[in-house]
Amino acid sequence: MSDIIRRKTRLVSVGDIKIGGGSPITVQSMLNTKTVDVDGSIKQIEKLRAVGCDLIRLAVPDENSAHAFGEIAKRTGLPLIADIHYNYKLAHLALDNGAKKIRMNPGNMQDFAQIKPLADRMRDLGVPVRVGVNGGSLDDRFKGMNEVDALVESALECANIFESAGMRDIVIAIKSSNTDINIRANEKLASMCDYPLHIGVTEAGTLRTGLVKSSIGIGTLLREGIGDTIRVSLSTDVVEEVLAGKKILQTLGIRKNAVEVVACPTCARTEIDVEEFANRVELLTANVEKPLTISILGCPLNGIGEGENSDLGIAGGKEKSVILKDGKIFKTVPSSEVFEEFKKLLDEKLV
Amino acid sequence: MSDIIRRKTRLVSVGDIKIGGGSPITVQSMLNTKTVDVDGSIKQIEKLRAVGCDLIRLAVPDENSAHAFGEIAKRTGLPLIADIHYNYKLAHLALDNGAKKIRMNPGNMQDFAQIKPLADRMRDLGVPVRVGVNGGSLDDRFKGMNEVDALVESALECANIFESAGMRDIVIAIKSSNTDINIRANEKLASMCDYPLHIGVTEAGTLRTGLVKSSIGIGTLLREGIGDTIRVSLSTDVVEEVLAGKKILQTLGIRKNAVEVVACPTCARTEIDVEEFANRVELLTANVEKPLTISILGCPLNGIGEGENSDLGIAGGKEKSVILKDGKIFKTVPSSEVFEEFKKLLDEKLV
Repeated sequence: MSDIIRRKTRLVSVGDIKIGGGSPITVQSMLNTKTVDVDGSIKQIEKLRAVGCDLIRLAVPDENSAHAFGEIAKRTGLPLIADIHYNYKLAHLALDNGAKKIRMNPGNMQDFAQIKPLADRMRDLGVPVRVGVNGGSLDDRFKGMNEVDALVESALECANIFESAGMRDIVIAIKSSNTDINIRANEKLASMCDYPLHIGVTEAGTLRTGLVKSSIGIGTLLREGIGDTIRVSLSTDVVEEVLAGKKILQTLGIRKNAVEVVACPTCARTEIDVEEFANRVELLTANVEKPLTISILGCPLNGIGEGENSDLGIAGGKEKSVILKDGKIFKTVPSSEVFEEFKKLLDEKLV
Repeated sequence: MSDIIRRKTRLVSVGDIKIGGGSPITVQSMLNTKTVDVDGSIKQIEKLRAVGCDLIRLAVPDENSAHAFGEIAKRTGLPLIADIHYNYKLAHLALDNGAKKIRMNPGNMQDFAQIKPLADRMRDLGVPVRVGVNGGSLDDRFKGMNEVDALVESALECANIFESAGMRDIVIAIKSSNTDINIRANEKLASMCDYPLHIGVTEAGTLRTGLVKSSIGIGTLLREGIGDTIRVSLSTDVVEEVLAGKKILQTLGIRKNAVEVVACPTCARTEIDVEEFANRVELLTANVEKPLTISILGCPLNGIGEGENSDLGIAGGKEKSVILKDGKIFKTVPSSEVFEEFKKLLDEKLV
C-alpha cells in the first residue's frame, strides 16, 4: 500500500497545523467533557496530546461554553476547533474566544444569509471553516434524495457560499453512519472539488463496531488517496479515537515511524497475560516516532520463532519467560519479572 | 459494496458447515482454554455459539488434548477443528477423536513424507485439511524469499502433496501480521488456485490494534471477492473475535440480516451512558438475523433527528429520555427507567 497517490487538495491552516496540500494526514478527536468544565477539559486535552492527537474540537453549545473555550485555548496554547450547531452567534463568540477553526453543520444552520458576515470575519482572521454534514441531521430540503447525493450537495452548497465571500480556507466533511454510503459520498465529493476532506464514519458506535466501521470506511478512502484529516468516532474514551486513527494510518503504511505491537491471539498454550502486556506497551509507545516492532507472544515454543522479526519482545512461559531483542533470545527470566525486565530494554530503545 | 463478485472456489464441507463454492462466508474462532479443560472449553464454545460463531478450532498440542478434544466433540455434537503443529501423530489422534477438519502448519511439520498416509485417511473419512501458513513460522527453506512469495509457495507446495494423494477437500490460509503483505499474498494466491481461502491477520494484537488491522486486512480482501471463511485474531475474549468477524461482514453488506447498533460518539451534550447501553444492545442482538437499526444517542436535541432511520432507539436526556420506535418519538420516560422500557420494545421486535 506504499503506492497510495493522494488526491491534490488546497492547503488549509489551523493555527500551525496544516490540512491538505500534501501535508501529513492529521488525526483529530473531540472532547466529551462539558466545555464549561475547564479543568476537566484541559485534563482530557492533555491525555489526547500524550497519545499524539493533532487537532482537538470542543462543543460550543452556549455562551458560557464559548467563554470556557477561550479560557481553555489560552491555557493550553493549542489551536482548538469550535463545534457549532444551530446558532451563528455562537460561531462569532467562538471567534472572539480564539477558535482557530469553526465546524458548522449546515443541516441545522439553515439561514445562509448569516454566512456572509461570518465568512468575512473568518477570512480576515485567517480562520478556516469545516462544513460538516451528517446523514442524520440533513436539512429537510435534501431529505428526499438518496443519501450520497444529499450529503455531497448539501456540503458543496454551503461551501460555495463561503467561497463566494472570498474565503479559501474551507474543509469539508460528509459523514454517514452507513460505511458504504460514506465511502461513495466521499468518492463523489472528492472528484468534484479541491477542498481538503475530513473523513470519518459518524455515530460509528461502540469500540468494537466503531473500529470495524471506521477502519473499513476511513481505510478504504485513504487507500484511494482520499482524506486529509481523519477522526474515528467512538462512544468510548476519546484516547481510543486517537489510537485507532493513528493505527489506521500505520496499517496503511502512511504513518511509518511508529511502534508496531504484535501480539499472539492466545490459545491453550498461552502462559502469560498477553492482552494486558500488549495494552500496556501500546499506551507506552503510542506517541513514539520510531519504526519498532515489539512482539508479545504467549508461549516460548512458537514465540521465539515468531519473534524473529521483532526489535524487542516477550515469549512468555509458565515459570520462566524469554525476552527477545533484535530477533534473538536476550535473556530468560522468571515470568513474574518479565515485564519489568522488558520495560528496561524498552526505555533504552525509546531514547 | 453490494457489487462484490466472489472468487469461484471449490466446495469443502466441515461436517455440515460449508466453506467455498459460493456458500455464505463463515466466521470462526479458536478457543483459548486448555483443551484438556473439557468443561471450561465447552463453556467457551457455548459463549461463541451464542454470538453466532460458525466454526470452532481447538489446540491439540499433546495426546491428552486429543482425547479431551474427542470428549468435547461428543458432548457438543459440533464439527470441531483440530489445530496441529509439529506432530503428524497428533493429527491422526485428532481424527481418531472425531475432528471434522485438521489445520496443519507446514512450517513446523516439514517431514512431508508423512502427508500421504494422513491424506489417504482424511480423504476416506471426508475430513478436510486447512494448510495454514504463518509469516512468523515459515519453514527455513522459504526464509530468504520475500514474505508474499514465501507464504504462497509454502502453502501451495503443501496443498499439492495433499492433492496428489487424491484429496480434494483443501482450504488454505496464509497469514502475516503485516496487513499489506497479508493482502498482497492472498491476492496472489487467489489468482493461482481454486482452493477456498481462510483469511485473517495473524498476531493482530490487542482489541484496538487487532480490529483495525483485521478490518482493513480482511475487509479489503472481501471487497475484492477473496475469502470464504474468516477469523479475526485478537489477544482478548474470543467472543470479540466473532462479534468483529460478523461486523466486518455486515459493514461490507455481505451479512444483511443483522442488527445495526448506531451510537453517537458522545460529546459535551451527552446525558446517558451511551457506551454501556450500546454494548448491552450489541451483545443482546449479536445473533439476531433481522435487519434492524437501533440508535443509542446521547442527547434529545440531535438524537431525535438522528434516530429518524432507526427501528428502535434511545435519545437520552438528563432527567427524561425519549424512546424512538420506527423513527418517531414513542414515549418519554424517566432516564433511570429508559433501558428497561427500551428492552421491552426490543424483545417485541426480536420475536
